Amino acid sequence: MSREQLTVAELSEGELLARIFPRLNKPLNQPLNAGGSLLLGPGDDAAVVAAPDGRTLISIDTQTQDQDFRLEWNNGYRTTGYDVGWKSAAQNLSDINAMGGTALSLVVSLTMPPGTPVEWVEDFADGLTAGIAGLGAAECSVAGGDLGRGRELAVTVAIVGTMHGLPAVLRSGARPSDCLALAGTVGRAAAGLALLESEVPLAGLTTVQRAIMDSQCRPNPPLAAGPQGAAAGATAMMDVSDGLLRDGSRLAAASGVILDLDPVALKSLAVPLEAASALLGTDPMDWVLGGGEDHGLLATFPATVQLPSGFTAIGSVHAVAEGQHSGVRIAGMPADTVGWDHFAD
Amino acid sequence: MSREQLTVAELSEGELLARIFPRLNKPLNQPLNAGGSLLLGPGDDAAVVAAPDGRTLISIDTQTQDQDFRLEWNNGYRTTGYDVGWKSAAQNLSDINAMGGTALSLVVSLTMPPGTPVEWVEDFADGLTAGIAGLGAAECSVAGGDLGRGRELAVTVAIVGTMHGLPAVLRSGARPSDCLALAGTVGRAAAGLALLESEVPLAGLTTVQRAIMDSQCRPNPPLAAGPQGAAAGATAMMDVSDGLLRDGSRLAAASGVILDLDPVALKSLAVPLEAASALLGTDPMDWVLGGGEDHGLLATFPATVQLPSGFTAIGSVHAVAEGQHSGVRIAGMPADTVGWDHFAD
Repeated sequence: MSREQLTVAELSEGELLARIFPRLNKPLNQPLNAGGSLLLGPGDDAAVVAAPDGRTLISIDTQTQDQDFRLEWNNGYRTTGYDVGWKSAAQNLSDINAMGGTALSLVVSLTMPPGTPVEWVEDFADGLTAGIAGLGAAECSVAGGDLGRGRELAVTVAIVGTMHGLPAVLRSGARPSDCLALAGTVGRAAAGLALLESEVPLAGLTTVQRAIMDSQCRPNPPLAAGPQGAAAGATAMMDVSDGLLRDGSRLAAASGVILDLDPVALKSLAVPLEAASALLGTDPMDWVLGGGEDHGLLATFPATVQLPSGFTAIGSVHAVAEGQHSGVRIAGMPADTVGWDHFAD
Repeated sequence: MSREQLTVAELSEGELLARIFPRLNKPLNQPLNAGGSLLLGPGDDAAVVAAPDGRTLISIDTQTQDQDFRLEWNNGYRTTGYDVGWKSAAQNLSDINAMGGTALSLVVSLTMPPGTPVEWVEDFADGLTAGIAGLGAAECSVAGGDLGRGRELAVTVAIVGTMHGLPAVLRSGARPSDCLALAGTVGRAAAGLALLESEVPLAGLTTVQRAIMDSQCRPNPPLAAGPQGAAAGATAMMDVSDGLLRDGSRLAAASGVILDLDPVALKSLAVPLEAASALLGTDPMDWVLGGGEDHGLLATFPATVQLPSGFTAIGSVHAVAEGQHSGVRIAGMPADTVGWDHFAD
């Protein structure tokens, strides 16, 4: 039997784990877990992770086949285990980043149909560790996990992190006159999704278009920005996972403010998407305002603060006047009156 | 439309969360989170949990429909959302217990087909919190979660806990001449599974048989025993989730020892299962040696230590003689030669 045909049904859980463990926590681009936060790793009933300031940030996220990714896309691309591993790491690392924290460790539960190739699982483990290392989460280790069977592939990652002594940055702290800023990209993963779902075959994409497509499969959240934002005094932060308008509305509601987006800044966010929008005949502003999954970081800072490296001003925070509701505006106009209401929550 | 027919597809995520949040962290049998370990609860990108001694225990477990539970059983019983919530809590609380720790908080990811009744989800949330309270995990809160769609129901819980300053009790610390002890039950959940899968209709069960069946749906791990075992100086601990022989073999291998089970003690563990074994014509010893999911606690203690409350001696620990392998024996005989080899790993 060729190696490609070996499926998880043919291995015991112990045999499968023996193929996965060596792929976790090994040095890739840089040493993982350089901070030594993993006090007890996989293999016992639970792992032990250091919590240096006596608090632990925790979050959980699931990706399910055909809901969060397709195994095969309309344009012919096949999602690899590496992609799913990378994206699982990125999504969860972003949640810690969005609090201003640093990820210390994650645990992963992988549910698979019995016919899943073992190679896919090995590739998943490689993508998970490559995502951690490649995104710069040098203090993060893989602490353990759970393997199980199901009718569809599903990956759940839970992640813990530390604030290194700083207060966590909530969604609720934005104040009138604050500057609204963004780190990382928006709309790029949505443009990538549009390419994956398009009739344009994979082989027909330019290098730039292919890189946009890859942003959907292996997103690149700005992990340095969270702790830098917290240290610089960000008043509110969240990651943009459902789109600038929807997530912005949530931050505005939690803080009881209005976020006013600057149209010039929005236009400059759309420029890098033009290679995809020109091909597909789409308005790139739809992706900028409605696209999630880049896991860019939306933050507010007091106007007196110099924005930390990686952040760009994209608007400002205003008080809710009498008769108004909290929400997102574009150049002072309610966002849902300027053509993007199909993104409303 | 009657309330029974409302499905999750008819509610937005925000509307569904609004029905779930009030059911979490409310007092049930006793106040949840009495220790105040949840510093920031659900609603932001991550939660913040206290880690009083600067370390965090972490574990993750998934339950998938038709793998870990059936929605409808052969005997007519229908698994409720409450059952699945309770069992999710029990399984994960047990992992922290098995290290000797105390659970502080959990996060939950629920994947559901669109046709899932909203009432099932509310019932799940109630079962989760009732499990936490009913099992005595008074310091444990629900810190957050994730909702998603899939073709089958799946629940993943990740849990964090504290050792309250004590060292974590690993599987690898058992030493020759230690006493082998058990807290909680074994075989009861397996007997319950046999009842659920039997042809004996639900209505035909006695109260005692029904209670055994319920142990499969809503297990009762001995959560006080873990921290008490750690405080008393347990050398090794693990929870019995795959059966006394399989899990015992893992502890024996990790410690490099032989665990010798006492046949008299095993027989007394079988007695409470006779109401089910007599009905089904089964040897209850199969359940005692092979049954998991009660999440009883297997532990070793120095022979000089008085066993803490809740633990019963069931055997002893021996060195591996030349030519032997680590493993489980019964009255000195390799367990796989005395009729239970179909449970071997």
